[in-house]
Amino acid sequence: MLTTPLAVLPAELSAGQFELVYNAFSFCIAAMAASALFFFNARAQVAEKYRPALLVSALVVSIATYHYFRIFNAWDGAYALQNGVYDVTGIPFNDAYRYADWLLTVPLLLVEAVAVLALAPKVSKSLLLKLAAAAIVMIATGYPGEISNSISTRLIWGTISTIPFVYILYVLWIELSKAIDRQPTAVKGLVNSLRLLLLLSWGVYPIAYLLPVFGITGASATVGVQVGYTIADVLAKPVFGLYIFAIAKAKTEADKEESTGETVVPVDGAAMKPALEGAVNN
Amino acid sequence: MLTTPLAVLPAELSAGQFELVYNAFSFCIAAMAASALFFFNARAQVAEKYRPALLVSALVVSIATYHYFRIFNAWDGAYALQNGVYDVTGIPFNDAYRYADWLLTVPLLLVEAVAVLALAPKVSKSLLLKLAAAAIVMIATGYPGEISNSISTRLIWGTISTIPFVYILYVLWIELSKAIDRQPTAVKGLVNSLRLLLLLSWGVYPIAYLLPVFGITGASATVGVQVGYTIADVLAKPVFGLYIFAIAKAKTEADKEESTGETVVPVDGAAMKPALEGAVNN
Repeated sequence: MLTTPLAVLPAELSAGQFELVYNAFSFCIAAMAASALFFFNARAQVAEKYRPALLVSALVVSIATYHYFRIFNAWDGAYALQNGVYDVTGIPFNDAYRYADWLLTVPLLLVEAVAVLALAPKVSKSLLLKLAAAAIVMIATGYPGEISNSISTRLIWGTISTIPFVYILYVLWIELSKAIDRQPTAVKGLVNSLRLLLLLSWGVYPIAYLLPVFGITGASATVGVQVGYTIADVLAKPVFGLYIFAIAKAKTEADKEESTGETVVPVDGAAMKPALEGAVNN
Repeated sequence: MLTTPLAVLPAELSAGQFELVYNAFSFCIAAMAASALFFFNARAQVAEKYRPALLVSALVVSIATYHYFRIFNAWDGAYALQNGVYDVTGIPFNDAYRYADWLLTVPLLLVEAVAVLALAPKVSKSLLLKLAAAAIVMIATGYPGEISNSISTRLIWGTISTIPFVYILYVLWIELSKAIDRQPTAVKGLVNSLRLLLLLSWGVYPIAYLLPVFGITGASATVGVQVGYTIADVLAKPVFGLYIFAIAKAKTEADKEESTGETVVPVDGAAMKPALEGAVNN
Protein backbone atom coordinates (compact mmCIF):
# COMPACT_ATOMS: atom_id res chain seq x y z
CA MET A 1 0.00 0.00 0.00
CA LEU A 2 1.13 3.52 -0.79
CA THR A 3 1.15 6.09 1.94
CA THR A 4 0.37 8.75 -0.66
CA PRO A 5 -1.45 6.92 -3.42
CA LEU A 6 -0.99 8.21 -6.96
CA ALA A 7 -4.58 9.22 -7.59
CA VAL A 8 -4.29 11.43 -4.53
CA LEU A 9 -1.52 13.93 -5.22
CA PRO A 10 1.39 14.13 -2.76
CA ALA A 11 0.66 16.90 -0.26
CA GLU A 12 3.98 18.61 -0.92
CA LEU A 13 6.51 18.86 -3.74
CA SER A 14 9.90 20.58 -3.65
CA ALA A 15 10.25 23.56 -6.01
CA GLY A 16 12.54 21.43 -8.20
CA GLN A 17 10.03 18.55 -8.43
CA PHE A 18 7.09 20.82 -9.26
CA GLU A 19 9.10 22.75 -11.86
CA LEU A 20 10.49 19.64 -13.55
CA VAL A 21 6.95 18.45 -14.36
CA TYR A 22 5.83 22.02 -15.19
CA ASN A 23 8.71 22.54 -17.62
CA ALA A 24 8.28 19.09 -19.19
CA PHE A 25 4.61 19.91 -19.91
CA SER A 26 5.47 23.32 -21.38
CA PHE A 27 8.25 21.83 -23.53
CA CYS A 28 5.78 19.19 -24.72
CA ILE A 29 3.19 21.83 -25.74
CA ALA A 30 5.84 23.62 -27.82
CA ALA A 31 7.05 20.36 -29.41
CA MET A 32 3.51 19.15 -30.24
CA ALA A 33 2.33 22.49 -31.67
CA ALA A 34 5.50 23.02 -33.72
CA SER A 35 5.30 19.54 -35.21
CA ALA A 36 1.59 20.10 -36.03
CA LEU A 37 2.62 23.19 -38.05
CA PHE A 38 5.40 21.16 -39.66
CA PHE A 39 3.24 18.15 -40.65
CA PHE A 40 0.43 20.31 -42.05
CA ASN A 41 2.90 22.29 -44.17
CA ALA A 42 5.31 19.48 -45.11
CA ARG A 43 2.57 17.57 -46.97
CA ALA A 44 3.49 19.56 -50.11
CA GLN A 45 6.99 18.03 -50.02
CA VAL A 46 5.82 14.43 -50.52
CA ALA A 47 3.94 12.70 -53.33
CA GLU A 48 0.16 12.86 -53.18
CA LYS A 49 -0.30 9.25 -52.08
CA TYR A 50 1.79 9.83 -48.92
CA ARG A 51 -0.05 13.00 -47.87
CA PRO A 52 -2.88 11.31 -45.90
CA ALA A 53 -0.26 9.77 -43.54
CA LEU A 54 1.20 13.25 -42.89
CA LEU A 55 -2.26 14.68 -42.32
CA VAL A 56 -2.91 11.98 -39.71
CA SER A 57 0.44 12.83 -38.05
CA ALA A 58 -0.65 16.48 -37.96
CA LEU A 59 -3.98 15.56 -36.32
CA VAL A 60 -2.29 13.39 -33.67
CA VAL A 61 0.00 16.20 -32.50
CA SER A 62 -2.80 18.79 -32.76
CA ILE A 63 -4.97 16.70 -30.42
CA ALA A 64 -1.99 16.27 -28.08
CA THR A 65 -1.32 20.04 -28.11
CA TYR A 66 -4.87 20.61 -26.84
CA HIS A 67 -4.60 17.98 -24.12
CA TYR A 68 -1.17 19.16 -22.93
CA PHE A 69 -2.56 22.69 -22.51
CA ARG A 70 -5.25 21.18 -20.26
CA ILE A 71 -2.73 18.99 -18.41
CA PHE A 72 -0.37 21.97 -17.93
CA ASN A 73 -3.17 24.13 -16.51
CA ALA A 74 -4.38 21.29 -14.25
CA TRP A 75 -0.86 20.83 -12.87
CA ASP A 76 -0.42 24.58 -12.36
CA GLY A 77 -3.72 24.72 -10.49
CA ALA A 78 -3.10 21.65 -8.35
CA TYR A 79 -0.19 23.21 -6.42
CA ALA A 80 0.62 26.60 -4.93
CA LEU A 81 4.02 27.90 -3.78
CA GLN A 82 4.21 28.43 -0.03
CA ASN A 83 7.42 29.09 1.90
CA GLY A 84 9.59 27.72 -0.91
CA VAL A 85 7.69 24.45 -1.41
CA TYR A 86 4.61 23.54 -3.42
CA ASP A 87 1.52 22.48 -1.44
CA VAL A 88 -1.61 20.89 -2.92
CA THR A 89 -4.42 23.38 -3.41
CA GLY A 90 -7.13 20.71 -3.31
CA ILE A 91 -8.02 21.25 -6.98
CA PRO A 92 -7.71 17.73 -8.46
CA PHE A 93 -5.18 16.90 -11.18
CA ASN A 94 -7.14 15.13 -13.89
CA ASP A 95 -5.46 12.02 -15.31
CA ALA A 96 -8.41 11.42 -17.67
CA TYR A 97 -6.98 13.98 -20.14
CA ARG A 98 -4.22 11.52 -21.02
CA TYR A 99 -6.64 8.64 -21.51
CA ALA A 100 -9.01 10.78 -23.62
CA ASP A 101 -5.98 11.83 -25.67
CA TRP A 102 -4.82 8.24 -26.18
CA LEU A 103 -8.33 7.10 -27.08
CA LEU A 104 -8.18 9.51 -30.03
CA THR A 105 -4.48 9.45 -30.91
CA VAL A 106 -3.49 5.79 -30.56
CA PRO A 107 -5.90 4.56 -33.29
CA LEU A 108 -4.59 7.43 -35.49
CA LEU A 109 -0.98 6.44 -34.78
CA LEU A 110 -1.91 2.90 -35.84
CA VAL A 111 -3.29 4.34 -39.10
CA GLU A 112 0.13 5.98 -39.68
CA ALA A 113 2.01 2.79 -38.89
CA VAL A 114 -0.20 0.66 -41.14
CA ALA A 115 0.03 3.27 -43.93
CA VAL A 116 3.81 2.84 -43.93
CA LEU A 117 3.40 -0.90 -44.46
CA ALA A 118 1.78 -0.18 -47.86
CA LEU A 119 -0.28 -3.40 -47.77
CA ALA A 120 -3.13 -4.29 -50.11
CA PRO A 121 -6.22 -2.20 -49.15
CA LYS A 122 -8.23 -5.18 -47.82
CA VAL A 123 -5.37 -6.56 -45.72
CA SER A 124 -4.64 -3.07 -44.45
CA LYS A 125 -8.22 -2.46 -43.38
CA SER A 126 -8.66 -5.73 -41.51
CA LEU A 127 -5.28 -5.29 -39.77
CA LEU A 128 -6.21 -1.78 -38.71
CA LEU A 129 -9.58 -2.83 -37.31
CA LYS A 130 -7.94 -5.52 -35.18
CA LEU A 131 -5.24 -3.16 -33.89
CA ALA A 132 -7.67 -0.30 -33.20
CA ALA A 133 -9.97 -2.61 -31.23
CA ALA A 134 -6.99 -3.84 -29.19
CA ALA A 135 -5.93 -0.21 -28.57
CA ILE A 136 -9.34 0.72 -27.18
CA VAL A 137 -9.31 -2.30 -24.84
CA MET A 138 -5.74 -1.41 -23.79
CA ILE A 139 -6.64 2.19 -22.89
CA ALA A 140 -10.01 1.39 -21.29
CA THR A 141 -8.51 -1.28 -19.02
CA GLY A 142 -5.46 0.83 -18.12
CA TYR A 143 -7.54 3.71 -16.76
CA PRO A 144 -9.13 2.05 -13.66
CA GLY A 145 -5.61 1.12 -12.49
CA GLU A 146 -4.25 4.62 -13.16
CA ILE A 147 -6.83 6.35 -10.94
CA SER A 148 -6.87 3.72 -8.22
CA ASN A 149 -5.38 4.33 -4.77
CA SER A 150 -4.42 0.70 -4.39
CA ILE A 151 -1.24 -0.87 -5.71
CA SER A 152 -2.94 -4.23 -6.23
CA THR A 153 -5.75 -2.67 -8.30
CA ARG A 154 -3.09 -0.86 -10.37
CA LEU A 155 -1.25 -4.13 -10.88
CA ILE A 156 -4.37 -6.12 -11.89
CA TRP A 157 -5.66 -3.58 -14.44
CA GLY A 158 -2.11 -2.94 -15.63
CA THR A 159 -1.68 -6.65 -16.34
CA ILE A 160 -5.00 -6.89 -18.22
CA SER A 161 -4.07 -3.80 -20.24
CA THR A 162 -0.70 -5.35 -21.10
CA ILE A 163 -2.31 -8.16 -23.11
CA PRO A 164 -3.66 -5.95 -25.96
CA PHE A 165 -0.52 -3.75 -25.58
CA VAL A 166 1.79 -6.71 -26.31
CA TYR A 167 -0.53 -7.91 -29.09
CA ILE A 168 -0.34 -4.52 -30.88
CA LEU A 169 3.43 -4.28 -30.55
CA TYR A 170 3.94 -7.90 -31.65
CA VAL A 171 1.75 -7.55 -34.75
CA LEU A 172 3.34 -4.23 -35.76
CA TRP A 173 6.87 -5.57 -35.19
CA ILE A 174 6.21 -8.60 -37.40
CA GLU A 175 4.50 -6.54 -40.12
CA LEU A 176 7.21 -3.84 -40.08
CA SER A 177 9.90 -6.55 -40.28
CA LYS A 178 8.18 -8.04 -43.34
CA ALA A 179 7.76 -4.57 -44.86
CA ILE A 180 11.50 -3.81 -44.68
CA ASP A 181 12.19 -6.35 -47.46
CA ARG A 182 9.72 -4.65 -49.79
CA GLN A 183 11.27 -1.19 -49.43
CA PRO A 184 13.73 0.51 -51.79
CA THR A 185 17.29 0.55 -50.39
CA ALA A 186 17.08 4.18 -49.27
CA VAL A 187 14.01 3.42 -47.16
CA LYS A 188 15.04 0.11 -45.50
CA GLY A 189 17.12 1.84 -42.80
CA LEU A 190 14.34 4.28 -41.98
CA VAL A 191 11.69 1.56 -41.56
CA ASN A 192 14.10 -0.35 -39.34
CA SER A 193 14.60 2.76 -37.17
CA LEU A 194 10.83 3.28 -37.05
CA ARG A 195 10.41 -0.28 -35.76
CA LEU A 196 12.95 0.36 -32.98
CA LEU A 197 11.40 3.74 -32.14
CA LEU A 198 8.00 2.07 -31.80
CA LEU A 199 9.42 -0.40 -29.29
CA LEU A 200 11.37 2.29 -27.42
CA SER A 201 8.53 4.84 -27.17
CA TRP A 202 5.77 2.37 -26.33
CA GLY A 203 8.11 0.71 -23.83
CA VAL A 204 8.22 3.88 -21.69
CA TYR A 205 4.45 3.82 -20.96
CA PRO A 206 4.32 0.60 -18.90
CA ILE A 207 7.50 1.63 -17.06
CA ALA A 208 5.89 4.95 -16.06
CA TYR A 209 2.62 3.16 -15.20
CA LEU A 210 4.36 0.62 -13.00
CA LEU A 211 6.67 3.02 -11.09
CA PRO A 212 4.43 2.90 -7.99
CA VAL A 213 4.34 -0.90 -8.20
CA PHE A 214 8.16 -0.93 -8.19
CA GLY A 215 8.07 0.73 -4.77
CA ILE A 216 8.61 4.30 -5.99
CA THR A 217 6.06 6.24 -3.99
CA GLY A 218 4.77 9.69 -3.10
CA ALA A 219 6.31 12.73 -4.80
CA SER A 220 8.88 10.71 -6.78
CA ALA A 221 6.16 8.46 -8.24
CA THR A 222 4.01 11.41 -9.32
CA VAL A 223 6.98 13.23 -10.90
CA GLY A 224 8.25 10.02 -12.52
CA VAL A 225 4.86 9.04 -13.99
CA GLN A 226 4.18 12.53 -15.41
CA VAL A 227 7.66 13.10 -16.87
CA GLY A 228 7.75 9.51 -18.14
CA TYR A 229 4.42 9.80 -19.99
CA THR A 230 5.51 13.16 -21.42
CA ILE A 231 8.79 11.75 -22.80
CA ALA A 232 6.90 8.74 -24.21
CA ASP A 233 4.33 11.03 -25.88
CA VAL A 234 7.07 13.16 -27.50
CA LEU A 235 8.74 10.03 -28.86
CA ALA A 236 5.51 8.32 -29.95
CA LYS A 237 3.91 11.36 -31.61
CA PRO A 238 6.20 14.10 -33.04
CA VAL A 239 9.33 11.93 -33.38
CA PHE A 240 7.33 8.97 -34.77
CA GLY A 241 5.65 11.40 -37.19
CA LEU A 242 9.04 12.75 -38.31
CA TYR A 243 10.08 9.20 -39.23
CA ILE A 244 6.84 8.75 -41.18
CA PHE A 245 7.66 12.03 -42.98
CA ALA A 246 11.25 10.90 -43.69
CA ILE A 247 9.97 7.58 -45.08
CA ALA A 248 7.35 9.37 -47.24
CA LYS A 249 10.04 11.78 -48.51
CA ALA A 250 12.48 8.96 -49.31
CA LYS A 251 9.73 6.99 -51.08
CA THR A 252 8.76 10.09 -53.08
CA GLU A 253 12.39 10.39 -54.27
CA ALA A 254 12.58 6.65 -54.99
CA ASP A 255 9.35 6.83 -57.06
CA LYS A 256 10.80 9.74 -59.06
CA GLU A 257 14.00 7.83 -59.81
CA GLU A 258 12.01 4.80 -60.88
CA SER A 259 9.80 6.77 -63.27
CA THR A 260 12.66 8.76 -64.85
CA GLY A 261 15.01 5.77 -64.77
CA GLU A 262 17.85 7.84 -63.36
CA THR A 263 19.16 9.07 -60.06
CA VAL A 264 18.03 12.56 -59.17
CA VAL A 265 21.25 14.54 -58.95
CA PRO A 266 21.15 16.73 -55.87
CA VAL A 267 21.82 20.25 -57.10
CA ASP A 268 22.25 23.39 -55.10
CA GLY A 269 19.37 23.82 -52.66
CA ALA A 270 18.36 20.20 -53.03
CA ALA A 271 20.96 19.70 -50.33
CA MET A 272 18.38 21.11 -47.94
CA LYS A 273 16.66 17.76 -47.98
CA PRO A 274 19.40 15.82 -46.15
CA ALA A 275 19.72 18.71 -43.73
CA LEU A 276 16.07 18.29 -42.85
CA GLU A 277 16.43 14.56 -42.70
CA GLY A 278 19.36 15.06 -40.37
CA ALA A 279 17.06 16.93 -38.01
CA VAL A 280 14.54 14.16 -38.39
CA ASN A 281 17.07 11.54 -37.41
CA ASN A 282 18.08 13.22 -34.18
CA MET B 1 29.09 37.30 -4.44
CA LEU B 2 25.80 38.87 -5.44
CA THR B 3 23.65 40.51 -2.82
CA THR B 4 20.56 39.60 -4.88
CA PRO B 5 21.47 36.52 -6.88
CA LEU B 6 19.97 36.17 -10.35
CA ALA B 7 17.89 33.07 -9.70
CA VAL B 8 16.24 35.01 -6.88
CA LEU B 9 14.63 38.08 -8.43
CA PRO B 10 15.60 41.51 -7.06
CA ALA B 11 13.02 42.48 -4.41
CA GLU B 12 12.29 45.80 -6.08
CA LEU B 13 12.48 47.28 -9.57
CA SER B 14 11.89 50.89 -10.56
CA ALA B 15 8.89 51.43 -12.83
CA GLY B 16 11.31 52.15 -15.69
CA GLN B 17 13.26 48.91 -15.15
CA PHE B 18 10.14 46.72 -14.95
CA GLU B 19 8.58 48.35 -18.01
CA LEU B 20 11.74 48.11 -20.11
CA VAL B 21 11.73 44.32 -19.77
CA TYR B 22 7.92 44.16 -20.12
CA ASN B 23 8.00 46.18 -23.35
CA ALA B 24 10.96 44.24 -24.75
CA PHE B 25 9.04 40.95 -24.23
CA SER B 26 5.87 42.34 -25.84
CA PHE B 27 7.85 43.72 -28.80
CA CYS B 28 9.48 40.32 -29.17
CA ILE B 29 6.10 38.49 -29.24
CA ALA B 30 4.93 40.80 -32.05
CA ALA B 31 8.19 40.38 -33.99
CA MET B 32 8.21 36.58 -33.65
CA ALA B 33 4.52 36.13 -34.55
CA ALA B 34 4.69 38.53 -37.52
CA SER B 35 7.76 36.79 -38.93
CA ALA B 36 6.04 33.39 -38.49
CA LEU B 37 3.16 34.69 -40.65
CA PHE B 38 5.70 36.06 -43.14
CA PHE B 39 7.79 32.88 -43.44
CA PHE B 40 4.75 30.59 -43.78
CA ASN B 41 3.33 32.78 -46.54
CA ALA B 42 6.57 33.80 -48.30
CA ARG B 43 7.36 30.20 -49.23
CA ALA B 44 5.33 30.68 -52.41
CA GLN B 45 7.81 33.36 -53.53
CA VAL B 46 10.83 31.05 -53.71
CA ALA B 47 11.56 27.96 -55.79
CA GLU B 48 10.33 24.65 -54.39
CA LYS B 49 13.75 23.42 -53.29
CA TYR B 50 14.22 26.45 -50.98
CA ARG B 51 10.83 26.11 -49.29
CA PRO B 52 11.85 23.63 -46.56
CA ALA B 53 14.37 26.18 -45.24
CA LEU B 54 11.60 28.80 -45.01
CA LEU B 55 9.30 26.32 -43.30
CA VAL B 56 12.01 25.70 -40.69
CA SER B 57 12.36 29.48 -40.19
CA ALA B 58 8.59 29.66 -39.67
CA LEU B 59 8.70 26.88 -37.06
CA VAL B 60 11.57 28.53 -35.15
CA VAL B 61 9.71 31.82 -34.72
CA SER B 62 6.41 30.01 -33.98
CA ILE B 63 8.06 28.13 -31.12
CA ALA B 64 9.62 31.39 -29.89
CA THR B 65 6.23 33.14 -30.03
CA TYR B 66 4.79 30.51 -27.67
CA HIS B 67 7.71 30.79 -25.24
CA TYR B 68 7.71 34.60 -25.22
CA PHE B 69 4.01 34.55 -24.29
CA ARG B 70 4.93 32.34 -21.33
CA ILE B 71 7.97 34.51 -20.45
CA PHE B 72 5.89 37.69 -20.69
CA ASN B 73 3.19 36.28 -18.40
CA ALA B 74 5.79 35.00 -15.93
CA TRP B 75 7.41 38.45 -15.78
CA ASP B 76 4.04 40.15 -15.37
CA GLY B 77 3.15 37.78 -12.52
CA ALA B 78 6.52 38.09 -10.77
CA TYR B 79 6.09 41.80 -9.87
CA ALA B 80 3.26 44.02 -8.67
CA LEU B 81 3.16 47.83 -8.67
CA GLN B 82 3.12 49.32 -5.20
CA ASN B 83 3.68 53.00 -4.37
CA GLY B 84 5.27 53.68 -7.74
CA VAL B 85 7.78 50.80 -7.67
CA TYR B 86 7.52 47.12 -8.58
CA ASP B 87 7.85 44.62 -5.72
CA VAL B 88 8.27 40.86 -6.14
CA THR B 89 5.04 38.92 -5.64
CA GLY B 90 6.80 35.69 -4.71
CA ILE B 91 5.63 33.94 -7.90
CA PRO B 92 8.87 32.68 -9.45
CA PHE B 93 10.09 33.89 -12.86
CA ASN B 94 10.89 30.74 -14.81
CA ASP B 95 14.18 30.85 -16.75
CA ALA B 96 13.60 27.30 -18.03
CA TYR B 97 11.30 28.63 -20.80
CA ARG B 98 14.35 30.09 -22.58
CA TYR B 99 16.29 26.85 -22.31
CA ALA B 100 13.32 24.73 -23.47
CA ASP B 101 12.97 27.15 -26.38
CA TRP B 102 16.64 26.93 -27.33
CA LEU B 103 16.59 23.14 -27.05
CA LEU B 104 14.00 23.11 -29.84
CA THR B 105 15.02 26.16 -31.90
CA VAL B 106 18.84 26.04 -31.96
CA PRO B 107 18.95 22.66 -33.79
CA LEU B 108 16.35 24.05 -36.23
CA LEU B 109 18.44 27.21 -36.77
CA LEU B 110 21.40 24.95 -37.52
CA VAL B 111 19.24 23.15 -40.13
CA GLU B 112 18.63 26.57 -41.76
CA ALA B 113 22.33 27.51 -41.66
CA VAL B 114 23.47 24.16 -43.08
CA ALA B 115 20.76 24.32 -45.78
CA VAL B 116 22.27 27.59 -47.02
CA LEU B 117 25.65 25.88 -47.42
CA ALA B 118 24.14 23.59 -50.09
CA LEU B 119 26.62 20.78 -49.39
CA ALA B 120 26.42 17.22 -50.70
CA PRO B 121 23.66 15.31 -48.81
CA LYS B 122 26.03 13.06 -46.83
CA VAL B 123 28.37 15.89 -45.80
CA SER B 124 25.39 18.00 -44.83
CA LYS B 125 23.87 15.30 -42.65
CA SER B 126 27.08 14.49 -40.76
CA LEU B 127 27.83 18.20 -40.22
CA LEU B 128 24.33 18.78 -38.89
CA LEU B 129 24.50 15.84 -36.48
CA LYS B 130 27.79 17.16 -35.02
CA LEU B 131 26.46 20.71 -34.68
CA ALA B 132 23.12 19.62 -33.18
CA ALA B 133 24.89 17.44 -30.59
CA ALA B 134 27.16 20.38 -29.68
CA ALA B 135 24.08 22.63 -29.38
CA ILE B 136 22.38 20.26 -26.93
CA VAL B 137 25.55 20.09 -24.79
CA MET B 138 25.84 23.89 -24.95
CA ILE B 139 22.26 24.46 -23.73
CA ALA B 140 22.25 21.68 -21.13
CA THR B 141 25.51 22.91 -19.54
CA GLY B 142 24.45 26.58 -19.64
CA TYR B 143 21.29 25.97 -17.60
CA PRO B 144 22.79 25.00 -14.20
CA GLY B 145 24.83 28.23 -14.26
CA GLU B 146 21.80 30.32 -15.27
CA ILE B 147 19.68 29.21 -12.31
CA SER B 148 22.50 29.22 -9.77
CA ASN B 149 22.76 31.83 -7.01
CA SER B 150 26.54 31.69 -7.03
CA ILE B 151 28.78 33.68 -9.36
CA SER B 152 31.42 30.97 -9.36
CA THR B 153 28.89 28.28 -10.37
CA ARG B 154 27.68 30.59 -13.14
CA LEU B 155 31.26 31.11 -14.29
CA ILE B 156 32.14 27.38 -14.27
CA TRP B 157 29.05 26.21 -16.22
CA GLY B 158 29.31 29.24 -18.48
CA THR B 159 32.88 28.29 -19.35
CA ILE B 160 31.95 24.65 -20.04
CA SER B 161 29.04 25.78 -22.21
CA THR B 162 31.36 28.10 -24.15
CA ILE B 163 33.34 25.15 -25.57
CA PRO B 164 30.51 23.75 -27.78
CA PHE B 165 29.37 27.36 -28.41
CA VAL B 166 32.74 28.32 -29.91
CA TYR B 167 32.89 25.00 -31.80
CA ILE B 168 29.50 25.65 -33.50
CA LEU B 169 30.39 29.23 -34.41
CA TYR B 170 33.85 28.24 -35.68
CA VAL B 171 32.53 25.41 -37.89
CA LEU B 172 29.70 27.54 -39.30
CA TRP B 173 32.06 30.51 -39.94
CA ILE B 174 34.50 28.30 -41.87
CA GLU B 175 31.73 26.55 -43.84
CA LEU B 176 29.92 29.81 -44.65
CA SER B 177 33.23 31.35 -45.79
CA LYS B 178 33.81 28.41 -48.13
CA ALA B 179 30.20 28.60 -49.36
CA ILE B 180 30.57 32.25 -50.43
CA ASP B 181 32.85 31.22 -53.33
CA ARG B 182 30.24 28.79 -54.67
CA GLN B 183 27.43 31.38 -54.80
CA PRO B 184 26.23 33.37 -57.81
CA THR B 185 27.40 37.03 -57.67
CA ALA B 186 24.03 38.32 -56.48
CA VAL B 187 24.12 35.97 -53.48
CA LYS B 188 27.77 36.39 -52.31
CA GLY B 189 27.04 39.62 -50.42
CA LEU B 190 24.01 38.14 -48.66
CA VAL B 191 25.90 35.05 -47.45
CA ASN B 192 28.67 37.31 -46.20
CA SER B 193 26.11 39.38 -44.24
CA LEU B 194 24.55 36.20 -42.88
CA ARG B 195 27.98 35.14 -41.59
CA LEU B 196 28.42 38.47 -39.78
CA LEU B 197 24.85 38.37 -38.41
CA LEU B 198 25.51 34.90 -37.00
CA LEU B 199 28.56 36.18 -35.13
CA LEU B 200 26.79 39.34 -33.96
CA SER B 201 23.58 37.65 -32.74
CA TRP B 202 25.23 34.67 -31.09
CA GLY B 203 27.78 37.02 -29.52
CA VAL B 204 25.06 38.75 -27.46
CA TYR B 205 24.11 35.55 -25.55
CA PRO B 206 27.38 35.06 -23.61
CA ILE B 207 27.53 38.81 -22.87
CA ALA B 208 24.03 38.68 -21.33
CA TYR B 209 24.89 35.44 -19.50
CA LEU B 210 28.07 36.92 -18.03
CA LEU B 211 26.68 40.31 -16.93
CA PRO B 212 26.53 39.20 -13.28
CA VAL B 213 30.09 37.89 -13.52
CA PHE B 214 31.22 41.33 -14.79
CA GLY B 215 30.07 42.83 -11.49
CA ILE B 216 26.66 44.04 -12.68
CA THR B 217 24.34 42.96 -9.88
CA GLY B 218 20.79 43.09 -8.59
CA ALA B 219 18.14 44.88 -10.63
CA SER B 220 20.57 45.96 -13.38
CA ALA B 221 21.74 42.38 -13.90
CA THR B 222 18.18 41.01 -14.17
CA VAL B 223 17.11 43.75 -16.59
CA GLY B 224 20.34 43.43 -18.61
CA VAL B 225 20.13 39.64 -18.92
CA GLN B 226 16.44 39.66 -19.98
CA VAL B 227 16.72 42.53 -22.46
CA GLY B 228 20.01 41.10 -23.78
CA TYR B 229 18.55 37.64 -24.45
CA THR B 230 15.50 39.24 -26.09
CA ILE B 231 17.63 41.32 -28.49
CA ALA B 232 19.77 38.26 -29.27
CA ASP B 233 16.66 36.14 -29.97
CA VAL B 234 15.23 38.76 -32.35
CA LEU B 235 18.52 38.89 -34.26
CA ALA B 236 19.09 35.11 -34.27
CA LYS B 237 15.53 34.11 -35.26
CA PRO B 238 13.42 36.58 -37.33
CA VAL B 239 16.36 38.61 -38.72
CA PHE B 240 18.42 35.48 -39.45
CA GLY B 241 15.34 33.97 -41.13
CA LEU B 242 14.91 37.10 -43.27
CA TYR B 243 18.47 36.65 -44.56
CA ILE B 244 17.71 33.01 -45.35
CA PHE B 245 14.62 34.22 -47.24
CA ALA B 246 16.64 36.88 -49.13
CA ILE B 247 19.24 34.25 -50.11
CA ALA B 248 16.53 31.81 -51.24
CA LYS B 249 14.87 34.58 -53.27
CA ALA B 250 18.16 35.66 -54.91
CA LYS B 251 18.99 32.04 -55.74
CA THR B 252 15.52 31.54 -57.22
CA GLU B 253 16.16 34.54 -59.52
CA ALA B 254 19.66 33.28 -60.38
CA ASP B 255 18.26 29.82 -61.25
CA LYS B 256 15.67 31.44 -63.55
CA GLU B 257 18.32 33.48 -65.37
CA GLU B 258 20.45 30.40 -65.80
CA SER B 259 17.63 28.34 -67.32
CA THR B 260 16.32 31.09 -69.64
CA GLY B 261 19.78 32.48 -70.39
CA GLU B 262 18.63 36.05 -69.87
CA THR B 263 18.04 38.51 -67.11
CA VAL B 264 14.52 38.44 -65.71
CA VAL B 265 13.00 41.90 -66.13
CA PRO B 266 11.25 42.81 -62.91
CA VAL B 267 7.58 43.29 -63.73
CA ASP B 268 4.67 44.16 -61.54
CA GLY B 269 4.85 42.39 -58.16
CA ALA B 270 8.43 41.31 -58.73
CA ALA B 271 9.32 44.88 -57.79
CA MET B 272 8.46 43.94 -54.22
CA LYS B 273 11.67 41.96 -54.02
CA PRO B 274 14.09 44.91 -53.63
CA ALA B 275 11.70 46.43 -51.11
CA LEU B 276 11.80 43.28 -49.03
CA GLU B 277 15.57 43.08 -49.35
CA GLY B 278 15.73 46.65 -48.18
CA ALA B 279 13.86 45.64 -45.05
CA VAL B 280 16.18 42.70 -44.61
CA ASN B 281 19.31 44.82 -44.88
CA ASN B 282 18.23 47.37 -42.26
